[in-house]
Amino acid sequence: MCQLLGMNCNVPTDICFSFAGFHQRGGRTDEHRDGWGIAFYEGPGCRVYLDTKPAAESPVATLVREYPIRSTNVIAHIRMATVGGIALENTHPFMREMWGRYWSFAHNGTVGTLPAMRPDSRYRPVGGTDSERAFCLMLEHLRQCFPDGPPDEHALYDAIADIGGRIGADGTFNFLLSNGDLLFARCATRLAYLIREAPFATAHLVDEDYSVDFSEVTTPEDRVAVIATVPLTDNETWTPIAPGELLMFRDGAPLR
Amino acid sequence: MCQLLGMNCNVPTDICFSFAGFHQRGGRTDEHRDGWGIAFYEGPGCRVYLDTKPAAESPVATLVREYPIRSTNVIAHIRMATVGGIALENTHPFMREMWGRYWSFAHNGTVGTLPAMRPDSRYRPVGGTDSERAFCLMLEHLRQCFPDGPPDEHALYDAIADIGGRIGADGTFNFLLSNGDLLFARCATRLAYLIREAPFATAHLVDEDYSVDFSEVTTPEDRVAVIATVPLTDNETWTPIAPGELLMFRDGAPLR
Repeated sequence: MCQLLGMNCNVPTDICFSFAGFHQRGGRTDEHRDGWGIAFYEGPGCRVYLDTKPAAESPVATLVREYPIRSTNVIAHIRMATVGGIALENTHPFMREMWGRYWSFAHNGTVGTLPAMRPDSRYRPVGGTDSERAFCLMLEHLRQCFPDGPPDEHALYDAIADIGGRIGADGTFNFLLSNGDLLFARCATRLAYLIREAPFATAHLVDEDYSVDFSEVTTPEDRVAVIATVPLTDNETWTPIAPGELLMFRDGAPLR
Repeated sequence: MCQLLGMNCNVPTDICFSFAGFHQRGGRTDEHRDGWGIAFYEGPGCRVYLDTKPAAESPVATLVREYPIRSTNVIAHIRMATVGGIALENTHPFMREMWGRYWSFAHNGTVGTLPAMRPDSRYRPVGGTDSERAFCLMLEHLRQCFPDGPPDEHALYDAIADIGGRIGADGTFNFLLSNGDLLFARCATRLAYLIREAPFATAHLVDEDYSVDFSEVTTPEDRVAVIATVPLTDNETWTPIAPGELLMFRDGAPLR
């Protein structure tokens, strides 16, 4: 199994605090040693940093922890390989372009038998994971549902909930999916979130003895949703997402 | 205009030496301050590091310079914006998946009027550059030429030379394109390459006073092709690529 971290905000925000705790689970405070990755959206642009080293030892993770990249949507993943070897092409998040936007995806769990990819599929997996294959099938499904282009967010939500449920029916399909505007978080077994907004307080990490007083680094209008497999802080209230539930976040709050 | 750097090798090799000189042109020894990016292939996997800061000042560039990522194909780009503002979505290299492989692309120059993208195009630009649009058109063209999947390398070369020439007919279309196996280098106005192979010697950078004795860090079987807009070293012989010519590299040597 792996661990997921997502962030969705109403203003570009750096993820240094959350990542400081999260990346320790990649080989130091937990066993997810088989590579890691993170996708940051800045407007429609997206940068994805991947590494096959354990996150706790990766120079790229040190960069991400220390270089504040301000983003409105972030998806991060630390991997414990189940299907597919330790290799860059098997490292999450995966990214594809659809409808002129970058879509990125990270998965925790293992999914069962997936329908075969059609030979004329627009999206084909590069690596050997069930996760990338599931991502390609989801995008293919969305293209087929909406051949004329992107639908409104509620139709999109319904289609993602539908295909997510079908893929997840025979396996464990916790995932984070974003197009840089919306962030979708599906829980199969374990996923929780919190909203940070005014009045801001001090948060303290679980994975190392480190605190930030968010009242000192925010404005009253800021709002940030953080989603994680296992809560990252021990003095804030995390809300579990129910198994089978899909949440859709925009501007730091769940819309559905 | 921008500058390009490519590397194609028969064994995974780090690009630290070449990048040490190249990234100085992103704001220190030259004027290309509008962001930069680099794609590294490791087998079929690919990692793309992008930053909108000048390469000479970017913490991500410091990482790339100091963290030896061993790769058989690399494409790097430093940007001086002409079409499309300074933004992550306008930063090269661009990447798309085609035929189950990642393709990455960087461009130096400006191309003229491009045919409209068909509404059902598989590949759509995310940003506002002529470069990304040209890349999407090239991939679309290759898909149409080879609807049943990837052809052999010579048919692929011919198709890329053809579409490259057509796009470049009305503009300046220097580019690097790779799928992780082959690296294509098209010259419109300025592009040169060299092959480093046994017997290896010492190379000295143009952009800073730094030398490496490659005989100390290689084996006799190693072979590396380096391609750059402007030669990176001042004591090696760089071969200019002729305007209008497309070269195809594999395992550190031009095949055509």
